[in-house]
This record gives sequence, structure tokens and C-alpha cells, in this order.
Amino acid sequence: MHKELLEDIGEKELIKRLARFMPKNQISDDCAFIKTANKDLLINTDSLVENVHFSNETISSLDIGWKAVSCNVSDLISSGCSKIIGVNIGLVVPAKTDWNWIQDLYKGINQALEYFGGSILGGDCSVGKEKVISITAIGIQGEIKLRRNSCKPKEIIMTTGLHGLSKLGLMIKSKKIFDKNIFLTQALIDSAIKQFCKPKLNPKFLKQILNARPKKSDKIIGCTDSSDGLFQALLDLSIESNCKAVIDYTKIPKHKDWPQGDEWDKYYFFGGEDYELVFSLPKKWATNLLNSEKTISEIGYFTEGSPSVEFKNLQNDNFLKYKSFAHF
Amino acid sequence: MHKELLEDIGEKELIKRLARFMPKNQISDDCAFIKTANKDLLINTDSLVENVHFSNETISSLDIGWKAVSCNVSDLISSGCSKIIGVNIGLVVPAKTDWNWIQDLYKGINQALEYFGGSILGGDCSVGKEKVISITAIGIQGEIKLRRNSCKPKEIIMTTGLHGLSKLGLMIKSKKIFDKNIFLTQALIDSAIKQFCKPKLNPKFLKQILNARPKKSDKIIGCTDSSDGLFQALLDLSIESNCKAVIDYTKIPKHKDWPQGDEWDKYYFFGGEDYELVFSLPKKWATNLLNSEKTISEIGYFTEGSPSVEFKNLQNDNFLKYKSFAHF
Repeated sequence: MHKELLEDIGEKELIKRLARFMPKNQISDDCAFIKTANKDLLINTDSLVENVHFSNETISSLDIGWKAVSCNVSDLISSGCSKIIGVNIGLVVPAKTDWNWIQDLYKGINQALEYFGGSILGGDCSVGKEKVISITAIGIQGEIKLRRNSCKPKEIIMTTGLHGLSKLGLMIKSKKIFDKNIFLTQALIDSAIKQFCKPKLNPKFLKQILNARPKKSDKIIGCTDSSDGLFQALLDLSIESNCKAVIDYTKIPKHKDWPQGDEWDKYYFFGGEDYELVFSLPKKWATNLLNSEKTISEIGYFTEGSPSVEFKNLQNDNFLKYKSFAHF
Repeated sequence: MHKELLEDIGEKELIKRLARFMPKNQISDDCAFIKTANKDLLINTDSLVENVHFSNETISSLDIGWKAVSCNVSDLISSGCSKIIGVNIGLVVPAKTDWNWIQDLYKGINQALEYFGGSILGGDCSVGKEKVISITAIGIQGEIKLRRNSCKPKEIIMTTGLHGLSKLGLMIKSKKIFDKNIFLTQALIDSAIKQFCKPKLNPKFLKQILNARPKKSDKIIGCTDSSDGLFQALLDLSIESNCKAVIDYTKIPKHKDWPQGDEWDKYYFFGGEDYELVFSLPKKWATNLLNSEKTISEIGYFTEGSPSVEFKNLQNDNFLKYKSFAHF
């Protein structure tokens, strides 16, 4: 593809080109205008930095665009967002950046917004030494507030999907040799790369929770996403809600071809960027949900006790044993 | 002051320290929650990049914090914001950054929010090669919409203050020799440094406009800020509103000690970062406003014609002559 460097294009022309990705009514002013009909809002900012969160060797700018939206949308969904309004983009790129890279980034951002809902509201673009994509996403707070500090003892702990796949995808893409004696099936490789490059999240989560709710008076539940890994998500919930998570190791849902062993458990529990939801519900609500949504798994329960994560049904030599009673 | 590098502090501890600057109800979740009572919103993102928009040699991190908020708030004010809700902060800093630098940055951000209104809503912090402060500000759209594309022929063009001071402040701070034959008064030096380090903007602008309005049915006026310099602001208004700006050079308000000459006119019209408002109003509205607000100056008018900026009453040798009929 023909290369066009930003330093040759110039700032004025760049702004004009970026305007093509914006809604028509926003382009002439710096500010974006948001119409809200008496709704409370959720707002979230996450930045992706080159060579920290991504590198051109492991992921295309189309997929970076998708991921930059996803990691923000994931925070909105895990707070109970009922509708994504849109995103503001703070982009920093070196003058030697190829326009095609930026164009694909914005295409990826718009692909994600088509899938999750919402549009690009506005943003700005500056020159810098390394690429930074700082996205601020705005959405409408739905009927139920999902918060880290709202788990309660006796509630069932659940998660919306598999973990560790994104980390495995990164390792495959960066050609890091991790365990030469393990054969990875093509199905596992495909799932891992898909999860790493284009996480789909669960945009229907709030609806699923609402459909399973036994009492309309319940307006708040304990929830977070597993962007920093499943273990960290459980720990965050237990610290913020001041109770103890007890996890049944045998109930943890894994990809059917996921290998066994301590190293693989590390990827599973600490890999991060999984963007699944980790949450707890009272018994009846949980039963309704588990009956209607087959992709959601029960993995344990909360109990009174100082904030920590305890594992049950571990093999004697599992490294998680030494993590399990950690107090913070 | 004792130095504490981020790489020694660690991510967990950093997040804890940053939480001290956040409102209590926001710290446990990634998302910030915004209560809106049937109000339309304005949202704006602006990023400051180290060695592009600021350097440690010319400005303290306390002042960078103030400026990072100001440049965003300026865009909100120039769109007709009636109340600042708050800001989300996407911060990127190298691992060798001193904690004191960050602490002062957040102090500066909070000082600005105390002055302009609003609070820190949330944000995130990542490691990177160079510092980037990406701020997204949110505010409530007031009764009158201020937009770049709403100037009309026959309207009076006005501005809220002096220009060029911020550029002069930068040059003084960076010890760039510009005109050795010119004596700068202490009053001018002080004003320039103040405008460069801690721009105060005009947070009461919307109220002033509303107080002077002759007809309640007028809901939209043409306006922008002069963050890219007075000339660019006038050009943007004329392009977006599709009319011609005619500026009376003798009416341009200058600091009483501002030197004469082409070089000084360049700083004045193209310096940027002035954050004054440039706008137009119908005759009667303008007269009311000019009578009640002595800091606001009439500088010209719009007329039918292709988008451009024309200067009147120029001296023969003024370089602006050659800029004046530029078409874009």
C-alpha cells in the first residue's frame, strides 16, 4: 500500500481526513454535543500505549482500534451500562506514522462501535514520540447498578466466559516459546488469537441479568470485568465488598483443549485482557440466570471473612494454594 | 524535595495515591457515574504532549495541571457551557517520573477545577516513553448554543481580551531572544508569564451574553476560542459560517506596553494559547454587551463574501495586508 507520512500530509489535511470518521454535526466545533433525556451517565477513560499495551508486530491497527473501544466498553458494561453513547479519542502519533495506520485504527474503532453501539463523538490528534490511543467512552446507566463494592456473603460467584485465551493469543502472536512439550490444537489457537485481537465481550449482560431478576426492587449487584485477569477481578470484588471469595477450582470453565499444569493456570488466572464479567448474585437470581444463559458459569461463593480468594478442590501441588489465603 | 520514582512506587501504590485526588464515590470502580437532570451535555478532549505542548524547562507540573484543564474548559465555554461537571484524566508517564511531579499535576488540576467548577471524575495512568496528559471535560449545555458556524453578515465581531501574551510568556520562559532592541516593561512581562502559565479564561461569558440578550428567542450565536491564535479563530468562524470577517486593526485591544512592529503583530495574531473568546452578535445585542462588559472589545464585523479575513486601517507596510485576502 502507498505510504503517506503524517509529516508530509500536514495538520490541516489530517484534521480534514479525521473529520470523515466523525458524525456530520460534530466536525465544525471542538466540543461534542450529547442529548440526554434525563438519564444518568457512565464515563470511562483507558489509554493504550505503544510497546506497553500493543506493538505493531503482534496486532494490526484495525484490531487496536477495536480493542481500544472494547477495553472502555467493558468497563461500561461491568457498571451496568444500558446503551453506549459514544467515544472521544485522544490520539498521539509520531510524525513518521503512515496515514494508512491511522485510517485502519479509526475503521477498527467504528467497527467496534457498530457492534457495541454508539459513535465517535470527537477528539483530538497530537504529534508525539510514541503512539497513545486514549479513549473516553460514555454510556447510559441502566436500571441496575453494577459495582465492585456490592457483593455480599452467601452470594453465588459467576463469570461470563473463559479466561487465559487473550494471554495465549498474545504469546502465539509474539512467538514467545512457553511450553514446547505441549501440543496446541488449531481450535485453541484460533480462539486465543480471536480473543486477543478482537474480544467480543457480552453486550447483552445487563438484559440477561434483568430477565433473571426475581424481585424488581433489587437495583444493585457486585460486578467487575476481568481485564486484569480472573484472580485480580475476584480479589478486587472481595476487597471492595469486604468479604471472602471461595472458588471451586473444578468448576472453573476452561477451553476444551486448554492444557493442564501450573504454568497454564498462571496464564488462566493472571493473563488479563479477558474482558469477561465476574459477579455475584443471591441464590435464586443466580439459579434463574444459570438456567437461561448457558455461557455463564458458577465458580464459587462469597462468605464472611477478611478480603481474600480461597480455592477449593485444588490438587496438592497447585501453585494457587500459595496465593489463596493472601491478605491485602 | 525527596524524589520517589514511579518504578519504585509500583502500580498498585500509584493507583492508591491517585485515588486521593478523586471523589470518594468514584474510587472503587473504573467508571465514573454522572447524575444528569434532563440536561444536554458538552464533551471535549485535548491532550498535552511533553516537548510538544510543554517542557519541564518552561512550566511547572502544577501549572501544566491548570493548563490541561483550562484548554478543555475553554472549548466548553466557547460552546456555551453553563456548568462544568468534571474531567476524566488519561495520564501517560515514564517509569522514571518523580511522584512529586504527578502530585503537583493533580494539585494543579484540582486548583483549576476549584476555580472553574467541576471535579475529577476518573481516569487511568499508564507507563510510556514521554508524558501525555489527555483530559476529557464534560459540562452542561447552557441556554444559548455557541457554535463556529453561526455567525451572520452584519454582525459585530468581538473578543473577550488581549492576545499574544501567552506566546510572549512562552518566549520569556524559554529564554528565546526575539527582539533585543525592544524594552519590555515589568508589567508586560508579568502579564505574559501569568497568561502563559495560568490562563484564567472568562467563565462568566455565557451569563454576560444572556444578560445582554434583547430577545429571549435568540438561542444560538457564532463563537470560538482563540486557542490557535486570533487570526485562526477569525478564519475558522468565517469558513464555518461562510462569510467574510472585516477587522479594524486600530480597534484590536493590546496590552498597554505591547511593542509595535510586524514581528509583534505576528505574536499577537498567530501566537495561540490565548483562550479568549472570539464571537459575533447582532448590533443591538452587541451594544448592550459592550456597554455592560468593559473587558469585551468590538474589533470588526461580518459581511457577505467568500470566507476570509480582511484588515482595515493597516499601515502600508503591515504584513497582515498580505494575509488579509487569503482564500481557503
